[in-house]
Amino acid sequence: MKAIVFVTLKPGVLDPQGKAIHHSVESLGYRSIRDIRQGKYFEIALDPSLVESDARAQVERLAKDVLANPVIEDYRVEITA
Amino acid sequence: MKAIVFVTLKPGVLDPQGKAIHHSVESLGYRSIRDIRQGKYFEIALDPSLVESDARAQVERLAKDVLANPVIEDYRVEITA
Repeated sequence: MKAIVFVTLKPGVLDPQGKAIHHSVESLGYRSIRDIRQGKYFEIALDPSLVESDARAQVERLAKDVLANPVIEDYRVEITA
Repeated sequence: MKAIVFVTLKPGVLDPQGKAIHHSVESLGYRSIRDIRQGKYFEIALDPSLVESDARAQVERLAKDVLANPVIEDYRVEITA
């Protein structure tokens, strides 16, 4: 069983890394890019004997406590087969 | 119009960052996590006057030339409304 976790900055939080990428991309001549925000993406391989509800609970806890900083970041968990 | 770009290391490429996270997570007591690989995630705001095919072409080019290193990384582009 696999899980995917997406971690993104909350909407109001400044993203200097994204701004820097956007600036570089503009100077490379991309004219239709209005904004870029960077997030993190984790692919997690889980014990195959876990049932989906336990897997989701465990990965939600991992995302909240370890992978994301809930003060400034949002996270989203997807469980795949 | 918005685009999402996922950048992940190709399957055979070592991911020391993911390994380090996995090791920390194990020492925190998570017993059902078999492996973690970290990737990058970009949310891109595009000029709303672009048609979808142009938007996809432009973001594919951006992903290939700027956001990913195609020697060691795969990328995937999704265009959303």
